[in-house]
Amino acid sequence: MHAITISEPGGPDVLLWSEVDDPRPAPGEVLVEVVASAVNRADLLQRQGFYDPPPGASPYPGLEVSGRIAALGAGVSGWAVGDEVCALLGGGGYAEKVAVPAGQLLPVPSGVDLVEAAALPEVVCTVWSNVFMVAGLRPGETLLVHGGSSGIGTMAIQLAKAVDARVAVTAGTAAKLESCRELGADILINYREQDFVAELGKATEGHGADVILDNMGAKYLDRNIQALATSGRLAIIGMQGGVKGELNLSALMNKRAAVTATSLRARPATEKAAVVAAVREHVWPLLSSGAVKPVVDRRIPMSEAATGHRVLDESTHIGKVLLTTG
Amino acid sequence: MHAITISEPGGPDVLLWSEVDDPRPAPGEVLVEVVASAVNRADLLQRQGFYDPPPGASPYPGLEVSGRIAALGAGVSGWAVGDEVCALLGGGGYAEKVAVPAGQLLPVPSGVDLVEAAALPEVVCTVWSNVFMVAGLRPGETLLVHGGSSGIGTMAIQLAKAVDARVAVTAGTAAKLESCRELGADILINYREQDFVAELGKATEGHGADVILDNMGAKYLDRNIQALATSGRLAIIGMQGGVKGELNLSALMNKRAAVTATSLRARPATEKAAVVAAVREHVWPLLSSGAVKPVVDRRIPMSEAATGHRVLDESTHIGKVLLTTG
Repeated sequence: MHAITISEPGGPDVLLWSEVDDPRPAPGEVLVEVVASAVNRADLLQRQGFYDPPPGASPYPGLEVSGRIAALGAGVSGWAVGDEVCALLGGGGYAEKVAVPAGQLLPVPSGVDLVEAAALPEVVCTVWSNVFMVAGLRPGETLLVHGGSSGIGTMAIQLAKAVDARVAVTAGTAAKLESCRELGADILINYREQDFVAELGKATEGHGADVILDNMGAKYLDRNIQALATSGRLAIIGMQGGVKGELNLSALMNKRAAVTATSLRARPATEKAAVVAAVREHVWPLLSSGAVKPVVDRRIPMSEAATGHRVLDESTHIGKVLLTTG
Repeated sequence: MHAITISEPGGPDVLLWSEVDDPRPAPGEVLVEVVASAVNRADLLQRQGFYDPPPGASPYPGLEVSGRIAALGAGVSGWAVGDEVCALLGGGGYAEKVAVPAGQLLPVPSGVDLVEAAALPEVVCTVWSNVFMVAGLRPGETLLVHGGSSGIGTMAIQLAKAVDARVAVTAGTAAKLESCRELGADILINYREQDFVAELGKATEGHGADVILDNMGAKYLDRNIQALATSGRLAIIGMQGGVKGELNLSALMNKRAAVTATSLRARPATEKAAVVAAVREHVWPLLSSGAVKPVVDRRIPMSEAATGHRVLDESTHIGKVLLTTG
C-alpha cells in the first residue's frame, strides 16, 4: 500500500507518499481500507519531530480515518467486512490501510457522507471527553472555546448548544467568528482586537466561563483563570502558546476552580474504547438526527498531505481539512 | 459575652479576650454556647490581616466550635435547645457564643468528648470535600498527604485508610512521622532529609500518587505534578509555600492530571450545608464506631488563644490545638 512517511523532521515537504508494507490486524483489531483521514495539529508536531507516536502505534501520521472494513483480526465480533466505519487511531491514518483496535471503531452515522465521517472521531472524542466527561458542562452553563472555528471548536460549539449551554468563542477574523455564529455561538470575541477576559465578563455580567476548552496552554493560563466562573473548570488540550506558565493559586482557590490537561493519543486502548463508547451513546444520535454536523474546510488528495499541513500552519481554514485516498 | 478580638494586624499578642455584644441567631440559624473552638492556619492569616472574614461573617476568628444549642432562630427544625453539637463556621468561633446556620451543625458523634468534637468540623469537611468529593479517592489508590501530622493530615490519613487507600505522608520530624504511622500511614517521608518525589516513586514502584492533598501551594507545585500518577489529582488547600508557581502543562498533559484549589470558608451556605450533609452521612458513622478519632495535641483556655497561635507558628504540634471556654 501507500502511506505518508516522514523523511526527516521538518516542514511540510518532508511528507512523502511512499510504498510501504500493508499492516496486519492483530487479535482484537480490524483492518480498515481508508477512504479519508484528517489533519490534526498533532500531525504537524509529529512531522516536526516533537511528538513521537506512542509505543506500539503506527509510525505514519494520522489520528482518525473513515473507510471500509477489509479484514477482521482474531476475536473481533460485532463488525463485518465491508462495514462503513470511522475510527480513532494512535497513528497510521495517512495510509491506504490501517489496523485499528475494534473498540476504537464507530459506524458512519446515518446521513453523514463516508468521506466526511473522517472529520469526526478525533474532534468528537476530544470534545466529549474533555468538555463533558472531565469538565462536566451542564445545561445553562457557559463554555468558552478558544479557536472556535477550528475542527475542535466547530464541534465544541455544536455539542455545547445541543445540551443548552451558552457558548463563547475566540477567533482571529470576522469570517471565522461569523462561521461560529452560524453554528450557534452566542458570544463572539476577536482575540486580535479584544481582551477575551473583559469581553466575556461584559457578556456574562461578570459570571465568566464555567468551562473553558483551551488549545493555547501557557500563553492563556493566567487569563483563562481570570475568565473562569466560581467552580469553573479549565480543560487544556493544546499548548500552541507554550508549555510552562505561571499559575496563580490564590486566584484558583478564590474561584474553587480546576485545571486539567489531557490528550487522547497516549491513553491505553481500554480508556480510548470507553470514550468511543460514550461518544457513540451520546453524540452519534445527534449526528444521525442532523442536529450536529461535521464541518469540513476542504478535501485534499492524501498524496498531497503537505498542502493540508500548510493550511493548518497558516490557520486559514474553518473546520476540518480532510485527506482522501480516492 | 467574651470573644477574641484582633486589636490590629500582627503577632499573637494582638489577640485580646474582650467583652463584646452577644450574637443573635438570624432566621435559619441557631445560637451555640461554645465549649471549645480550634486553631486553624486561616486564623493566623486573619490575625496578620491577610484573610478577612467573608461578607456577613463574624469579625472574630474561629472556623469551628463544639458546644450546646442555647437558642433557635426562626424556622429552624430538627434541633433543640441543649443539644450537644459541633459546627463549621465562617468565623466567630473564638467566643463564648456564636450564631450558626443550621445546615452547618453536626451532632457530637457518640463516643466523642464534647470538647474534642471541636477538632472535627473544619478538618473533616476539608478532607472529605477535597479528597473524596473533588478528587474522588478510590479504594486501592495512593493518597499523598503533605503535613501528615497536622490536624488536616491526621484526619486525611484515617479517612483514606478507612476506604482502603494506601497513604503516604510527609512531615518534618521522626516523632511526627511515627504519629502518622500509628494512624495508619503506609509510606513515611521526612521532607527535611528526603526528596518526596523520589521516595514516593520508590515506595510505589514508579506509580506515584493518585491524589495529593497539599498545603504548600507554589513551593511544591512542580514536584507535586512530578509525584502524580497517570490520571492523578492534585488538591491544593493551602499556600504555606507561596501563591504563584510555574505549572508545566506538558507534564500535566502527559499524566492527564488535574489541579484543583479550594477553600471552605468563602463558599455560600448552601454549599457548606452540602459538604456537612455528606460528612454526616459518610464520616460520622466512622467516628461513632471509633474507626476514626479526632487527634488533639493540647487544650488551651480560649482567653490564652495567643499561646495556641504560637504553637501553630512553631509547628511543634501533632493534630489539633483546641481552645476551651470552660
